[in-house]
Amino acid sequence: MWQLYQFPLCPFSRKVRLLLGEKGVGYELVRESPWNRRDEFLHLNPAGQTPVMVEDAQGSVLVDSQAICEFFEETVDKPSLINGTAVQRAEIRRLVSWFDTQFYNDVTGPLLHERMIKRLNARPATPDAKALREAMKAAIGHLDYTDYLLDHRNWIAGATFSLADLAAAAQISVVDYLGGIDWKGHEQTARWYMGLKSRPSFRPLLAERMEVIGPAPHYANVDF
Amino acid sequence: MWQLYQFPLCPFSRKVRLLLGEKGVGYELVRESPWNRRDEFLHLNPAGQTPVMVEDAQGSVLVDSQAICEFFEETVDKPSLINGTAVQRAEIRRLVSWFDTQFYNDVTGPLLHERMIKRLNARPATPDAKALREAMKAAIGHLDYTDYLLDHRNWIAGATFSLADLAAAAQISVVDYLGGIDWKGHEQTARWYMGLKSRPSFRPLLAERMEVIGPAPHYANVDF
Repeated sequence: MWQLYQFPLCPFSRKVRLLLGEKGVGYELVRESPWNRRDEFLHLNPAGQTPVMVEDAQGSVLVDSQAICEFFEETVDKPSLINGTAVQRAEIRRLVSWFDTQFYNDVTGPLLHERMIKRLNARPATPDAKALREAMKAAIGHLDYTDYLLDHRNWIAGATFSLADLAAAAQISVVDYLGGIDWKGHEQTARWYMGLKSRPSFRPLLAERMEVIGPAPHYANVDF
Repeated sequence: MWQLYQFPLCPFSRKVRLLLGEKGVGYELVRESPWNRRDEFLHLNPAGQTPVMVEDAQGSVLVDSQAICEFFEETVDKPSLINGTAVQRAEIRRLVSWFDTQFYNDVTGPLLHERMIKRLNARPATPDAKALREAMKAAIGHLDYTDYLLDHRNWIAGATFSLADLAAAAQISVVDYLGGIDWKGHEQTARWYMGLKSRPSFRPLLAERMEVIGPAPHYANVDF
């Protein structure tokens, strides 16, 4: 049985969990707080980041959310989540990378830092209002881009449901939990996100809570 | 014919060029300075980053260095650069991602910013000595890690030459150009890097110069 090292608001672990859910791969959650830099965890992943997956029977260790997704895409064919022609697969990977880096660096990362990491300190610090404002402004710009994509396509990366939808939903769900998304004016993205939230792969994520901070009131509602 | 939008010291474009060189794929270089945020370029890639590849005859646009590498790995089989079992391929992708994000964020990115971007400003600014010191200190720590890997393996990700070697060499070559690597005490990595520099795929990179800044004296020597 695979074990997945993660914490409830890790967007990269959420991407992996959504993919495992869609593919019907069983796994066990192991709670890890990477900011504590536990020796045993650094031994698994010197970069010190979640997610990490471990399969003891075979002695396999998988590190890095995209490497993990590619692994399960290669070893569990159905449903294919990096699908279509080579050019279409490149478009899926472009958008996965855009959510994993640009969206995370501009929005999810700063919000997690200000609203979660600072509360976890031995001496909790107050969030920086300017950093929060900038992250929420970036969220608006980035959701304008997903609105634009969804105006032209059924799904984030094209005509079919793909890993790009899961990567997007993973980041957006963490930001929504932290109250960082103003849904007004983002009808296309809101409609798409409602569809994502109704999927069985998404439900376990909506039920989880991070100990130091509760979710925005509408967070778990499919119809928000 | 594919066109590759890049600038000489872009480590992600170098990774793609090394892969194209190894696979024998022809392409034309198009010089792009992403910091100028040219409208036509932003239209190709809203994220505003190099590399981007364009094939006019088919109307194909590929964005994001890893999406580009996966595309050519899927469409040009030989030599395979994401090779081996699924677990070995995950290890290759883990290390590619580690060089693309951790090594870049800690070392290549700050050095490019201090030594290149600041000189390209209309009013050139002086590099920040503290930022340079921190990047060079991080480089030492990260080369200790590549030494450790190469103590246990023939190549960065395992027994065979792979995209992880190219991703590593791409980052290291830019940092070496900028004089950010102290090779003393890094014999394993130096020996591996000499081998990489002797490959035909590497030669064009060693001959190129960035207009505002010359390379460290030993940069182009295979035996340094």
